[in-house]
Amino acid sequence: MKILISGFEPFGKLESNPTEALVKEAADWKIEGIDIRTVVLPVVYRECAARLQEEIEAVKPDVVLSLGVAVGRSAVTPERIGINVQHTEGEGKFGDNSGRKPDNEPLIEGGPDGLFATLPNREITRALTDSGIPAQISNSAGTYICNNTLYETLCYVRERGSQIKAGFIHVPATPEMASHTPHVPTMSLDVQAKALKTILTVIREN
Amino acid sequence: MKILISGFEPFGKLESNPTEALVKEAADWKIEGIDIRTVVLPVVYRECAARLQEEIEAVKPDVVLSLGVAVGRSAVTPERIGINVQHTEGEGKFGDNSGRKPDNEPLIEGGPDGLFATLPNREITRALTDSGIPAQISNSAGTYICNNTLYETLCYVRERGSQIKAGFIHVPATPEMASHTPHVPTMSLDVQAKALKTILTVIREN
Amino acid sequence: MKILISGFEPFGKLESNPTEALVKEAADWKIEGIDIRTVVLPVVYRECAARLQEEIEAVKPDVVLSLGVAVGRSAVTPERIGINVQHTEGEGKFGDNSGRKPDNEPLIEGGPDGLFATLPNREITRALTDSGIPAQISNSAGTYICNNTLYETLCYVRERGSQIKAGFIHVPATPEMASHTPHVPTMSLDVQAKALKTILTVIREN
Amino acid sequence: MKILISGFEPFGKLESNPTEALVKEAADWKIEGIDIRTVVLPVVYRECAARLQEEIEAVKPDVVLSLGVAVGRSAVTPERIGINVQHTEGEGKFGDNSGRKPDNEPLIEGGPDGLFATLPNREITRALTDSGIPAQISNSAGTYICNNTLYETLCYVRERGSQIKAGFIHVPATPEMASHTPHVPTMSLDVQAKALKTILTVIREN
Repeated sequence: MKILISGFEPFGKLESNPTEALVKEAADWKIEGIDIRTVVLPVVYRECAARLQEEIEAVKPDVVLSLGVAVGRSAVTPERIGINVQHTEGEGKFGDNSGRKPDNEPLIEGGPDGLFATLPNREITRALTDSGIPAQISNSAGTYICNNTLYETLCYVRERGSQIKAGFIHVPATPEMASHTPHVPTMSLDVQAKALKTILTVIREN
Repeated sequence: MKILISGFEPFGKLESNPTEALVKEAADWKIEGIDIRTVVLPVVYRECAARLQEEIEAVKPDVVLSLGVAVGRSAVTPERIGINVQHTEGEGKFGDNSGRKPDNEPLIEGGPDGLFATLPNREITRALTDSGIPAQISNSAGTYICNNTLYETLCYVRERGSQIKAGFIHVPATPEMASHTPHVPTMSLDVQAKALKTILTVIREN
Repeated sequence: MKILISGFEPFGKLESNPTEALVKEAADWKIEGIDIRTVVLPVVYRECAARLQEEIEAVKPDVVLSLGVAVGRSAVTPERIGINVQHTEGEGKFGDNSGRKPDNEPLIEGGPDGLFATLPNREITRALTDSGIPAQISNSAGTYICNNTLYETLCYVRERGSQIKAGFIHVPATPEMASHTPHVPTMSLDVQAKALKTILTVIREN
Repeated sequence: MKILISGFEPFGKLESNPTEALVKEAADWKIEGIDIRTVVLPVVYRECAARLQEEIEAVKPDVVLSLGVAVGRSAVTPERIGINVQHTEGEGKFGDNSGRKPDNEPLIEGGPDGLFATLPNREITRALTDSGIPAQISNSAGTYICNNTLYETLCYVRERGSQIKAGFIHVPATPEMASHTPHVPTMSLDVQAKALKTILTVIREN
């Protein structure tokens, strides 16, 4: 099974992005039955998804697993749905890395309002909590680049009638990112890597 | 420098207590210039402090560093003050491990209302955040066993005119403890152990 | 303009539901240009939406505005989207008022994954914050009865090619509901009623 | 019984302070058996307490009840203890209204570390929750102007061996203050005024 894992470059006030570190680490893992490919995406509306689609066409994966950091969350959270909106607020309040700040605009004119991710989110969540890692299905990927990546990837797969499974999983900030913001929950990169290995195994089995 | 580190047994609905694991791990550390001694305290009002005092008298430490878990906190939090009250609410709502649930009672009749910890809390907090671990001085150790341990230890030291430095540091829940409560922030035992080593080094230098 | 406002009966451990009080109060309001009709819905999956549809057919409103309480939120939150899922967790962990606890099931087999509400959510949010009431568009109505009501109502309107506008707005708990849970944010019924009047005026103008 | 109620002027980024509005409103209340006097204090370290002491000497109250706003809290919170420290962080991160930003300094050299408030906090909390207003005893008034006012007032009373009862109660932000920060819990001025009347009645009876 070929799995394409995407992470993001840093954004806003962040100097690093744990998902970039995670995909670089994952690129070297040997897991039986899984051919791991990775890509780091730009934090720019629409370009994030366009870059991922290029890679999908080059790699031809069975599964696309996108990772993003959700500063403020304490658990690993597989996303249930991508929605057809781009809007900057909260984490995205500085706009994307090109400086654009869309205000409640659609991502794709005439696209479906929302599309469900097709990863085995329930099985992933159960396996994570069983292995001692806090996890929960999330009902909103927000309206920033993470949602954009998920929504457009799901549209891409659906339009082509493709069998590719696709989804998005948010991870918490790392301790290093949040050492001066003591109320922000964190998860160390070691635990995040352990979570990612568990997730890959569940995807392989489902 | 001889440092006596205390942790606690589990309490309430918790099946384990990371501070028990931490002190057991610390008992085997070799850190230059520090003679580490450890003790695991009962989660029972008054007995917690009595047990620690026995150990202080047996060990004759230069510093007493007590550790406790604060479920819900995301950072390592050195406590500023112990106060003369015992009261069960929040985490302690099930009462202590003997089943007692005091209601806003003093710990020591006629004792001072509050006593400041004498560890170098500012230096500890700065060293932790500099090393990428979220930390902040806390202004309240609550009214449960942690505060009890801190308050009575500070009284004990003060009454004897002793030169012993004493304080209390809260750590977050571990991922394993909170895997089914995804809104509870966590810190892995690895990061907690790294934090404890940093704390010990700061105490040695100050 | 005829506006049908729905509220809910109590659920879970709640003894009252502020949205029931709100719609009863609103039934007596005289607001120029608005014919207010109200209904209180059962907190039972599927029945909530069926009961609302009966009322829509009887009343033939121009707008359907559903209200629900979101214990834990501090602001008035118009919902962006309803999704095709029923799942009990969080507030809904006791199941619905019939005792049913669906586990990540669709509401309508073959229905669209998500549908956007058609109320002027941006204008509502701006008018509320301008009048001193905390408000924000929410990206998730959850997976309990509130989302069920929103999703099925949007499906109903879409299937019929109807011009009815429909949406859902969550309000915080009231102080009376949360007096013994001091960490739960609240908004008094007076402020909620002021918010509802502002919302109705915005709907009339848009 | 003569009760001196203090509020504060605005501070930091706040344009108004609900405790100023509350004491101005309370100045006109007629409550049997209570002679209400009020004062609005400057948000400047040490001056806050000095101004309150002037008023205590002029008014000769039986009780001093200080009010402050705690942005982020959702309940009315009588404070248990004032502590001998001044330190700017969190709400006070902009420094006081004179621009001073003390770093973990004592308020009074050689003063006791902490002093308990002498208001009937338990009875106040119970009466508030019984009347449908979220309330809880707080174990920390922070290290900003509120704590300063409480600590120095308690020192003043103790040094003089006075029979004056003194304490501090924090109230939440109002909806108007937080309309653009939707995650900040609020309590309307109406509910705060109802709370204050309840508090005054409890003080009269205890």
